[in-house]
Amino acid sequence: MLTYKAPLRDIKFLMNEVLDYQGHYQTLDNGKNADAETVDMILQGFADFAETMLAPVYQAADEEGCHFKDGEVTTPKGFKEAYQAFMEGGWQGISYPEEFGGMNLPMSLNLIKSEMMGTANWPWSMYPGLSIGAVNTILQYGDEDQKNTYLPKLISGEWSGTMCLTESQAGTDLNQMKTRATPNDDGSYAITGTKIFISAGEHDLTDNIVHIVLARLPDAPAGTKGISLFIVPKFLVNADGEMGERNAVTCGSIEHKMGISSSATCVLNFDSATGYLIGEPNKGLKAMFTYMNTARIGTGIQGLSHMELAFQNSLPYAKERRSMRALSGTKEPDQAGDAIIHHADVRRMLLIQKAFCEGGRSMTYHSARYADHLANAVARGDEDAIKKWDDNLGFYTPILKGFLTELGIECAKHGQQIYGGHGYIKETGMELIARDARIATLYEGTTGVQALDLLGRKVLLNGAGKIVRDYTAGIMKWCSEYALDKEMRQYVWALTKLCAEWNMLTARLLIAARKDREIVSAASDDYLMYSGYVMMAYHWARMAAVAFDKMKNGGEQPYEFYLAKTQTAEFYFEKILPRSDAHANAMTTPSEVMTKMDIEHFAFLD
Amino acid sequence: MLTYKAPLRDIKFLMNEVLDYQGHYQTLDNGKNADAETVDMILQGFADFAETMLAPVYQAADEEGCHFKDGEVTTPKGFKEAYQAFMEGGWQGISYPEEFGGMNLPMSLNLIKSEMMGTANWPWSMYPGLSIGAVNTILQYGDEDQKNTYLPKLISGEWSGTMCLTESQAGTDLNQMKTRATPNDDGSYAITGTKIFISAGEHDLTDNIVHIVLARLPDAPAGTKGISLFIVPKFLVNADGEMGERNAVTCGSIEHKMGISSSATCVLNFDSATGYLIGEPNKGLKAMFTYMNTARIGTGIQGLSHMELAFQNSLPYAKERRSMRALSGTKEPDQAGDAIIHHADVRRMLLIQKAFCEGGRSMTYHSARYADHLANAVARGDEDAIKKWDDNLGFYTPILKGFLTELGIECAKHGQQIYGGHGYIKETGMELIARDARIATLYEGTTGVQALDLLGRKVLLNGAGKIVRDYTAGIMKWCSEYALDKEMRQYVWALTKLCAEWNMLTARLLIAARKDREIVSAASDDYLMYSGYVMMAYHWARMAAVAFDKMKNGGEQPYEFYLAKTQTAEFYFEKILPRSDAHANAMTTPSEVMTKMDIEHFAFLD
Repeated sequence: MLTYKAPLRDIKFLMNEVLDYQGHYQTLDNGKNADAETVDMILQGFADFAETMLAPVYQAADEEGCHFKDGEVTTPKGFKEAYQAFMEGGWQGISYPEEFGGMNLPMSLNLIKSEMMGTANWPWSMYPGLSIGAVNTILQYGDEDQKNTYLPKLISGEWSGTMCLTESQAGTDLNQMKTRATPNDDGSYAITGTKIFISAGEHDLTDNIVHIVLARLPDAPAGTKGISLFIVPKFLVNADGEMGERNAVTCGSIEHKMGISSSATCVLNFDSATGYLIGEPNKGLKAMFTYMNTARIGTGIQGLSHMELAFQNSLPYAKERRSMRALSGTKEPDQAGDAIIHHADVRRMLLIQKAFCEGGRSMTYHSARYADHLANAVARGDEDAIKKWDDNLGFYTPILKGFLTELGIECAKHGQQIYGGHGYIKETGMELIARDARIATLYEGTTGVQALDLLGRKVLLNGAGKIVRDYTAGIMKWCSEYALDKEMRQYVWALTKLCAEWNMLTARLLIAARKDREIVSAASDDYLMYSGYVMMAYHWARMAAVAFDKMKNGGEQPYEFYLAKTQTAEFYFEKILPRSDAHANAMTTPSEVMTKMDIEHFAFLD
Repeated sequence: MLTYKAPLRDIKFLMNEVLDYQGHYQTLDNGKNADAETVDMILQGFADFAETMLAPVYQAADEEGCHFKDGEVTTPKGFKEAYQAFMEGGWQGISYPEEFGGMNLPMSLNLIKSEMMGTANWPWSMYPGLSIGAVNTILQYGDEDQKNTYLPKLISGEWSGTMCLTESQAGTDLNQMKTRATPNDDGSYAITGTKIFISAGEHDLTDNIVHIVLARLPDAPAGTKGISLFIVPKFLVNADGEMGERNAVTCGSIEHKMGISSSATCVLNFDSATGYLIGEPNKGLKAMFTYMNTARIGTGIQGLSHMELAFQNSLPYAKERRSMRALSGTKEPDQAGDAIIHHADVRRMLLIQKAFCEGGRSMTYHSARYADHLANAVARGDEDAIKKWDDNLGFYTPILKGFLTELGIECAKHGQQIYGGHGYIKETGMELIARDARIATLYEGTTGVQALDLLGRKVLLNGAGKIVRDYTAGIMKWCSEYALDKEMRQYVWALTKLCAEWNMLTARLLIAARKDREIVSAASDDYLMYSGYVMMAYHWARMAAVAFDKMKNGGEQPYEFYLAKTQTAEFYFEKILPRSDAHANAMTTPSEVMTKMDIEHFAFLD
């Protein structure tokens, strides 16, 4: 039976001791209210809600799944009660403007909320989670009327939202999207088409669902330059703001999936459904892309969530389960065997989980500060600032989404290995984490899509590697301060070497890509994983530096807390970071090695 | 919808062109009948059976699962019909003595049969598969009466068998096993205890089930030196060989698992069940270990099976699904997008699947020759030969089981990635492969157990690394013949370097282990994976050498078949083999990095 306890000490270590969130909040328009006391109170509120309302219903809900009948979806037991409590807490509105009923706190708190809710019960968290995309889109691109009509109820949680992009033939490639929008006489549009894989597309948690739909206007150019955005509510909204007629959008079926079975994944049929254009015609994809950065951080958090849940539930088992004797000598002579945590190979798996959780959280919370600035810029309507912060965030997004979700799968796998055969049995829940973690590298852009976005768009096309030069320059500057530090120098020299290598690899790929364009795809996965491991190494070095300092000079947490941080940093550098060598050594192979095989020669089965 | 076509060309390439099975068969007592024509006919028989009876019911059976009611298990639709056809084909008896109704063909053919059946429908293949352990045990350790009573019906498939080792508190650690055997007056024993995770422990495919059970005699020494083996049939067998009274072994429940849901995993309660001692008292574990090498090759084959099925079903999708344009330029101008096989990153995943399948198959078929010799030695009752061939096989076993099952998981994962979001939906079947592949690193000894067996027992304790020195000496001798070969030299020099490194790493671990015994556990996973990648590189080099030769001098297969082999070899060396660097670089870290964290400092959640 899985349990969850919010890791508040680790969260506060990052916010208060490593990343100076209080100082950061002072630079935000909406950061003034986020004083230390308020933040503490809110974190405790998230934790209580996640631990008591979400975690206890996670496993049973997976067994039960969603029910689909006559176009309606019923969520599993406990989901409605949890959603009710969520609404009553006002949790949906944490980071949204007060004029629409929100608390106007920084966006980072919303992301930390997502982490806690998602760790406790990822599939449940998708119902309110999908609303975020709808709210962000309407906030940034909606007109006053649209904002006033939809935002208060979305922000209170009374209604929920979705993002309707995918069609069966068009996933990553939105060029192939076919859903049509034809103008009605009253200024609205008739939307016709079928969207698939729509999370929270239909459910029983809210009275109304506000779909944000990508569709083509009649005179739209072909391809992605002819896509517009529409608001299509499940129930039309009357002039008085109350719900009116049922709109012609229906749920045709829900998918049967490997996991996240308590999150409804819907086929939505739009049959001349009434929609309202939001933003400019044919500029829908651009609008989507701003949303995507936020959504992809959200999916990166899914990776973090599954790592944490796997770790929290592996650790007690490793302390309780007894098998064989440690090679270094019997640890528990009074027991029939030693607890498996005494075997180095089991510790290896636990420490990988721990290192990835805490390193991944540091990477996420660091990037969340850019999300704060971006939200701030959107609230101000400052286009230059939006571009600046979105560009900043854009470098981290594919790494957080691509890298952390891959690590989420790995940590879930280690959890099962630690449980042995019991890890394959539904009762222990480790297999559920593995199944749920598996979706995260597929949706919101596969790992391959993230990798190409990182190497192709963000690194090579953007100033010929400038973003890596800038980022590594920052690391090296930080490293230089510790070059003579007895404890830290091993880490900073390793990092310095990696920074040089990262730039060298980037330059080699840039040169190779002039003649071998396909190398950008061929190298992308190795480049993504390499970047992730190096970035995480920097975060572990920073956490270690803080921990060493606190061990010497005293800090908020007990000494042992800091000691464990330094020990985990050492483990990361010694046992995990060598993986970057494999990626570096494979990355610059010409794409020909992959492309030259004729597609008919992959298999000879006839 | 998953489909399966037996890869007969690849299988015959290995048997006839790389590994000289015909020459090998001439060295076996039971190899004379395995002439080329007979082997071809048998392979075609396996293929037809697997393709037509097993593959079509695989997915539906997973959906349906096994039914449990009042102690009885009903298998899913189609399983009985397939089992009937299997019996009628005499397939269970392929490699067993003619005196008990078998065909007396080499054991390797049985393993190749397991591969085809397992790829088509792994969970089904476990029902006859578990019998193999029972048959092998009775063949090697049973007395004449036991052989005559059980073997004919097990070998015909009329009855099936199980191996009952695990108890809830005792998995890997059989020291903790508690099941008791007390002597009855008639020379039989009363077996009492509960065994868990018993595959095929109860089902409706055969009339009787013959359990091989580990239990302790009353006066048995503590620990593994006090374990004896018993035959416990579900129905007792009368003197006339017919089934008699129902024995007191009952199925208490079946497990709800992540996958292999159509394979019944049973809790078996022995309540003074009648059992018959097999082999010597208190020597049960030694007997088990001979069985284990064979069983673990069988589980290694599961890795191979899932790789192949994932590859076969990824390839057509990659050719059909169209998304975006290749970076190197439009490939299919008449289509809305290029087939995703034209993207290098998708090819990377397909080529990993292909390289692992074909490389893993080569490793397996190579080792299967030792299994042939071992079976031969058992048939002769030649104890020295049994030890010799078991020692030989013992080096390969943990690598095949540990390494190939990990790669099976990876290949299933790539399959899902290639399908994108569709890879998470039950309908496409890719998620089923991923769920079923997941058990293979857990049962029959986790990857951690295999890794420790390899590094601790097989490598370090056995002549201080002698087995690696011998094995790599063989590789280097082979390499030396190609040192000046234009096509091959890149591979043989890479291999030569790896052989030197492998010995150097082994020596470093040997020295380190004198003071740091726990390093054997700490390094074991990296050592296992490293060994696997290097061994597979050797196999790819050998396959490439054959392919280059045939391309020059003509061979059985079309030129393109050989060309693809050389291209896959190149891909393996360039893009996959660098992973060995990561393992080499992490392996020799002192265990202290893992062991020094206090068990109470892993998490601070209170």
